[in-house]
Amino acid sequence: MIDNSKSKIAVIGSGSWATAMIKMLTDSTLSKEIFWWVRKPEDVTFIRTYKHNPSYLSAVEVKVQPENISSDVREIVSQCDIVVLNTPAAYLKSALEGLIASDFKDKTVVSAIKGIIPDENQIVGEYLRSQYDIPLEKIVVIGGPCHAEEVAQEKLSYLTFASSTKHEANAVAALFASRYINTIISDDVIGIEYGAVLKNIYALAGGICHGLGYGDNFQAVLISNAIREMDYFVEALAPQHRDIKTSAYLGDLLVTAYSQFSRNRTFGNMIGKGYTVQSAQLEMNMVAEGYYASACIQSVIQRFELRMPICNMVFQVLYNHQSASAEVTKLAKDFT
Amino acid sequence: MIDNSKSKIAVIGSGSWATAMIKMLTDSTLSKEIFWWVRKPEDVTFIRTYKHNPSYLSAVEVKVQPENISSDVREIVSQCDIVVLNTPAAYLKSALEGLIASDFKDKTVVSAIKGIIPDENQIVGEYLRSQYDIPLEKIVVIGGPCHAEEVAQEKLSYLTFASSTKHEANAVAALFASRYINTIISDDVIGIEYGAVLKNIYALAGGICHGLGYGDNFQAVLISNAIREMDYFVEALAPQHRDIKTSAYLGDLLVTAYSQFSRNRTFGNMIGKGYTVQSAQLEMNMVAEGYYASACIQSVIQRFELRMPICNMVFQVLYNHQSASAEVTKLAKDFT
Repeated sequence: MIDNSKSKIAVIGSGSWATAMIKMLTDSTLSKEIFWWVRKPEDVTFIRTYKHNPSYLSAVEVKVQPENISSDVREIVSQCDIVVLNTPAAYLKSALEGLIASDFKDKTVVSAIKGIIPDENQIVGEYLRSQYDIPLEKIVVIGGPCHAEEVAQEKLSYLTFASSTKHEANAVAALFASRYINTIISDDVIGIEYGAVLKNIYALAGGICHGLGYGDNFQAVLISNAIREMDYFVEALAPQHRDIKTSAYLGDLLVTAYSQFSRNRTFGNMIGKGYTVQSAQLEMNMVAEGYYASACIQSVIQRFELRMPICNMVFQVLYNHQSASAEVTKLAKDFT
Repeated sequence: MIDNSKSKIAVIGSGSWATAMIKMLTDSTLSKEIFWWVRKPEDVTFIRTYKHNPSYLSAVEVKVQPENISSDVREIVSQCDIVVLNTPAAYLKSALEGLIASDFKDKTVVSAIKGIIPDENQIVGEYLRSQYDIPLEKIVVIGGPCHAEEVAQEKLSYLTFASSTKHEANAVAALFASRYINTIISDDVIGIEYGAVLKNIYALAGGICHGLGYGDNFQAVLISNAIREMDYFVEALAPQHRDIKTSAYLGDLLVTAYSQFSRNRTFGNMIGKGYTVQSAQLEMNMVAEGYYASACIQSVIQRFELRMPICNMVFQVLYNHQSASAEVTKLAKDFT
């Protein structure tokens, strides 16, 4: 059980989303001590000195005690009772390198990561349970819709905190709530994580269609089919009462799919325009999460024999060299 | 029963959406004869001569027989077995002036109008039944999502045809289906009409919030709450099996709320920035459908004692001089 009055909370990661979380935690009035793991020692020195992240959301003033910022993950984790994981999914393993199950004993572990652990094909919650023996009731998942950039600007945003135990979700949520962050509580740990992974694939699909020349009318039909496909998927994997039209699912899909800045959409757009996967990745100089998510979700689709036409289209185009134009034409016939 | 091989179909109205429908009907391969009522005699002459609408979607070539274009509504209606109404809701009464119930006898009447009949506070289907005694089974409602501009560009779009009799909906849908128009059949005549009216209010709400400085994170939360409010409303008025996440409801809401060109959004944006209703209307030199819809829906809300916080906010701001900022702050507290 977390005693909020003295919470010691660590954020693991130093990208935009982690930096936004540092800001949310320091702007929330509930008393707490904040620790921050930043991967590069030179960034630790920079942030301690100038109180800004040199690379992400640089406008945000970092109000964490300088001595609480470190690139030694064991040192950070050992001092805290709540650990917030906030690296790209692809870098979580290396961020936690050296840590073992006992390092997380009795700690609440919060995942703010939206993605799949490479090689393992697991969402973060599953990975934490299998790798570090963290019991389900000590895991909290944070869902959107929430662009880091708008947190930096203090624009009113909503975060959903999901846990199998309501108390745990409430306790973590209270550490984030502030003038510009409203919190929502949920018990759908698995559904919210999978929803956040799927929405990247759907944003990528939207990009592909845009690149092929489809317009806004079609985009609206695509998204309204996508949310039903998401509903069907999470219901198949984790049947429980949920309303897929709430912010953590539909809202998160909308903010991603309708964002001009989404990497997934941009990547898909290049694919739709005829770039190969490799040249699109080279051109963007980064990797869209939806690309990895597509392969992982496809393995789940096959294992459970699910009918997921939009995810299938993306997979066929990205991994099986099928024609985007032909695949989308086929897909569009069954939309309702 | 409609014999498609010889359908005679009239379109009443000559705005963008009516012109887009003329194009869809002529591009659909099913044999039919098309009649077009255009209000101004000088426009009739222009279109007959130059085969373009002078004022709307001028790039579209009009392939209707010149002698079938007229500004005499009785002449047009009398020659047809299917009448498609496609004026702004505010002008339907004047468009049909002089016509009486017997003029519509045995005809299928199709509404492509998304709005409320002024003074009557009725959706078009209700108005047709009370004013012209048209039986429910002869009414077909056409739903989106479908911007006229993208029809002109032949971008793949979906139209939903709703009727209490499946055959009627199918027969009308077949006249519109083409290379770039996919058709969907529904039996939810009332729900689809009300959904199309409500989405304008929600787009206006989105504009108000944007004008107040709320960002994309909030917009996604607003829309995900709006679709649930719409679901609740149509279920209260016309309980039946429907999936609000399908294109005719959610898709139509998305294409409107996320369009930069939506008049409702633009109007709301000006209100959010502090314009009065009158100055916003003067500045835009046109009226947003959502403005009228708000008053009408409010009367329904009161009659049935419904809980519709987003519609309430819009009504309070537009008609009761309440502060947009205070109303949205109140509204945002209950979003999930």
